[in-house]
Amino acid sequence: MNPLGIHALVWAGDVSPESVKKIISSSKQAGFDLIEFSLHDPKPLDFGYTRELLKEYAIKPAFSRGLAFNADVSSDDPAVVARGVALLTEAINITQQLGGDYFGGVPYSALGKYSHPITAQGRKHVVETLRRISGEAADKGVKIGLEVVNRYESNVINTARQALELIDEVGTGNLCVHLDTYHMNIEEVDFTRPVLECGDKLGYVHIGESHRGYLGSGTINFTEFFHALAQIGYTGPITFESFSSTVVAEGLSNDLAVWRNLWNNGMDLATHAHAYISAQAKGAGLGVTDRPY
Amino acid sequence: MNPLGIHALVWAGDVSPESVKKIISSSKQAGFDLIEFSLHDPKPLDFGYTRELLKEYAIKPAFSRGLAFNADVSSDDPAVVARGVALLTEAINITQQLGGDYFGGVPYSALGKYSHPITAQGRKHVVETLRRISGEAADKGVKIGLEVVNRYESNVINTARQALELIDEVGTGNLCVHLDTYHMNIEEVDFTRPVLECGDKLGYVHIGESHRGYLGSGTINFTEFFHALAQIGYTGPITFESFSSTVVAEGLSNDLAVWRNLWNNGMDLATHAHAYISAQAKGAGLGVTDRPY
Amino acid sequence: MNPLGIHALVWAGDVSPESVKKIISSSKQAGFDLIEFSLHDPKPLDFGYTRELLKEYAIKPAFSRGLAFNADVSSDDPAVVARGVALLTEAINITQQLGGDYFGGVPYSALGKYSHPITAQGRKHVVETLRRISGEAADKGVKIGLEVVNRYESNVINTARQALELIDEVGTGNLCVHLDTYHMNIEEVDFTRPVLECGDKLGYVHIGESHRGYLGSGTINFTEFFHALAQIGYTGPITFESFSSTVVAEGLSNDLAVWRNLWNNGMDLATHAHAYISAQAKGAGLGVTDRPY
Amino acid sequence: MNPLGIHALVWAGDVSPESVKKIISSSKQAGFDLIEFSLHDPKPLDFGYTRELLKEYAIKPAFSRGLAFNADVSSDDPAVVARGVALLTEAINITQQLGGDYFGGVPYSALGKYSHPITAQGRKHVVETLRRISGEAADKGVKIGLEVVNRYESNVINTARQALELIDEVGTGNLCVHLDTYHMNIEEVDFTRPVLECGDKLGYVHIGESHRGYLGSGTINFTEFFHALAQIGYTGPITFESFSSTVVAEGLSNDLAVWRNLWNNGMDLATHAHAYISAQAKGAGLGVTDRPY
Repeated sequence: MNPLGIHALVWAGDVSPESVKKIISSSKQAGFDLIEFSLHDPKPLDFGYTRELLKEYAIKPAFSRGLAFNADVSSDDPAVVARGVALLTEAINITQQLGGDYFGGVPYSALGKYSHPITAQGRKHVVETLRRISGEAADKGVKIGLEVVNRYESNVINTARQALELIDEVGTGNLCVHLDTYHMNIEEVDFTRPVLECGDKLGYVHIGESHRGYLGSGTINFTEFFHALAQIGYTGPITFESFSSTVVAEGLSNDLAVWRNLWNNGMDLATHAHAYISAQAKGAGLGVTDRPY
Repeated sequence: MNPLGIHALVWAGDVSPESVKKIISSSKQAGFDLIEFSLHDPKPLDFGYTRELLKEYAIKPAFSRGLAFNADVSSDDPAVVARGVALLTEAINITQQLGGDYFGGVPYSALGKYSHPITAQGRKHVVETLRRISGEAADKGVKIGLEVVNRYESNVINTARQALELIDEVGTGNLCVHLDTYHMNIEEVDFTRPVLECGDKLGYVHIGESHRGYLGSGTINFTEFFHALAQIGYTGPITFESFSSTVVAEGLSNDLAVWRNLWNNGMDLATHAHAYISAQAKGAGLGVTDRPY
Repeated sequence: MNPLGIHALVWAGDVSPESVKKIISSSKQAGFDLIEFSLHDPKPLDFGYTRELLKEYAIKPAFSRGLAFNADVSSDDPAVVARGVALLTEAINITQQLGGDYFGGVPYSALGKYSHPITAQGRKHVVETLRRISGEAADKGVKIGLEVVNRYESNVINTARQALELIDEVGTGNLCVHLDTYHMNIEEVDFTRPVLECGDKLGYVHIGESHRGYLGSGTINFTEFFHALAQIGYTGPITFESFSSTVVAEGLSNDLAVWRNLWNNGMDLATHAHAYISAQAKGAGLGVTDRPY
Repeated sequence: MNPLGIHALVWAGDVSPESVKKIISSSKQAGFDLIEFSLHDPKPLDFGYTRELLKEYAIKPAFSRGLAFNADVSSDDPAVVARGVALLTEAINITQQLGGDYFGGVPYSALGKYSHPITAQGRKHVVETLRRISGEAADKGVKIGLEVVNRYESNVINTARQALELIDEVGTGNLCVHLDTYHMNIEEVDFTRPVLECGDKLGYVHIGESHRGYLGSGTINFTEFFHALAQIGYTGPITFESFSSTVVAEGLSNDLAVWRNLWNNGMDLATHAHAYISAQAKGAGLGVTDRPY
């Protein structure tokens, strides 16, 4: 069975010790094997305490971050790129220090609505940055995932095919594709082809509903997606992601356009998500070996 | 939350005391609230023992039967009709004796592949029979459900609309529609309109996958179906039905064209079905009152 | 049969006489009954020439516009609101002058990614503006449509339910809901409930694919949407909308995050869209009276 | 573009010269490139006249047949098998004589509801027959297609995987798989995996709606199926099949359980089907070379 994860923002918008305690204990209580911490504001993180709690609760961490417009490795401006690189280096270090082996999200771009297409120079900066960063990350035992996000969250890559091309261009072995059903629903041709095209380059998966609320309450054809995962024999993490105005991380929530209340009770949401993902995975035969068809 | 049921044929092909024990205990173990017993061959039923076990395990019974070509209330031949009526009377009596309040399935037809369309005379017999039978059943506190089945299992009604028309024609208040996703997938325009058209005439639901195997491993758009149930606020039973060559009821399995092995382990199948149905229902907001959208 | 329309941006990014000629003649050639002109920059419009061409080609116009952050009727700042009102007044006048009876889009908000949720004061301004504007429009025989757009294009309304609530609050009879499959795919629970909830308040429809490219090449369940339209007997316009980096309106294309090439040949795209929409509508039985089921 | 075909039973239930004239001229008028003639009762066929008409209308023929219970190559009884072989030989001869190069359908079984699973001996007869028949057909330039049908129409093969296994077992190169969306909807895990598993073994395709009526009026996810066809670059025939009580072939219609009126006007149905299939194929990018994604 694939490790099932949950995004920390279901529980808290920051990573203060108090919030980290809530995040870790609640994730465990809801049945998850992995927590994805967003590093949009990592300052309050107490490394020793967090490591200890992760150990105590026997739960694995993964890390993600999107860059900012003033620290954007897809910028034309080398100074802006340098600030982006610094954020990535910090994130990889945190990942290593907290015992993680995966850092993903949008390390190739600002996370937000651009006002113009990417330039050739910006693209060049992305490739150079990923080449350098993925090498450093490899040395630290950290894999880098490129999350394919929708047009309103980046102008660099919006489809699996573009992510695979970018990975090819970078040419290091330490990059993988991270698919997210919420974004796929907007940008991909279906929920099958991107998965088959990625094959073993698929390293991480986000399960999000079309409106980012309760799984099963939106338009996404999860059955098709899980059938595709079963077809490639995907064994990596499957992480639930959801956002509601109930739990807010000031900057990030506005970046993500979280205007609506999609749920009130994180534990109810999370418990359901675990059950829903498990049922879909098993229905599709993901990780099942004795299905006669 | 709606009562969740399971068809006894997941566990055993007959109703001998031994099988009844297995059926009841296994259904309970897999988490279900209700068992649907098929009365295709009720002779081995030990009424006292079954009643006792149902009480001991605190699980509710429902009953179903399809008629046979030589005991078919849609026949032109009054003698054949009379044999069908006798089977129905017997089934209603068993339902009452075992403490049930629901008898459904195909009480209006043989369960099988006809070799010709229904005649006007046959249709008249169906209406007369249901009028008489539903009155008797009402007196015994038993509701009669008309399961809408596909073209290969009856030539009398294949769509919800036809069932509603038949109920209108019969004109008694004791009939309800029983929708089954397996059959809907073949005969209906979608999984929404039939549910909305039934409204509070919908009295019973079968959840079956397109090939009658593991839920989520076939073509049925369960999300759409559960969204429709939520839209009408359906509160009745939802019963899982599945057939595999692993558990066989000689005649019935051949009538149902069960040629393939769709599963080996009934408990694994049933536990999954319970989780899958629960997750779909909750995802759709069925029985949920605090969903903000 | 519903009037089938096409968004002018399939053909040209501006409304210079040259472009208007191309837009009108191409729309006609591709088989459409209606053209939706975007009034994002109406200055180059030659009213007399456009009216004449519309008459010559016997094709109907509709008009749409989204506001800007410095002319936004959902702002807290009355001066910003006033600039928004001026844009709306202008748009309604153009609609009337060009013989149209429908002005829609996002008259209630800037069209773009907000950086914060709407305020109570902003919402009050929206209601006041719509009340005033819809009254003026009614006098000019122009109906106002509120297009329900996704979270990245407005923070005021993102679902049909929110649009209906806003219409109720405004309380004039001259507002209708405009649903767009592209946005519904992101924000609604499915493609059925919003349509049924709107009922005869649904006044205009956009058909856009999930990625805004070729119909049928994305994730949207058009079958479900057209079934829902058939269920409410929708008789209004159905307008195809698509964006590609091939045809660009400088500001608008960046507002809409059009980074990818989704098509090269507008005529091929448009002809296909007309055939696709016609086939879906007929398949669903929209406007069909002799379907026996 | 793939050749688009239509099943003759949309137009007429027999193959008398009069009916053949109607079938050929109507198919052409509705825009089709190919007609599939069912050989359930080939006696009335006038070979010379039919050949001439096919030439005059420049339309290609394909042929199909299902066997009968008394002429069934999956029977244990060699005499019954022999009668089945005779029917197949006849069908292949007719195919050749009428200038066809494809004979498909259910040459491996009776077309109908069996009352028991296939036996080992029956299966052996199927393999032997297909080995022999496909060799003879090859000599005559006729390819044999195995249509995968649902459980109520055969107990020999119900899934693409079973068809591929059978083809492997037979071991001649002259057999291909024929997939039919109507049957896939009942028996397959989805509309993608069977297509990908077949790959270039897929030789013929039937497009039928879930209830065999108007395309787009049922439950089938055609978008998914056409995406899968595009993924394998399928270039073979795509034939529309539909049955209604309006046009009846006595025996065949009852074998197929055609009880309902799904349409009245064959030309309206056929024209729509041609448009619907064309739109789906193009939407999915089937045969399209310049789609930028």
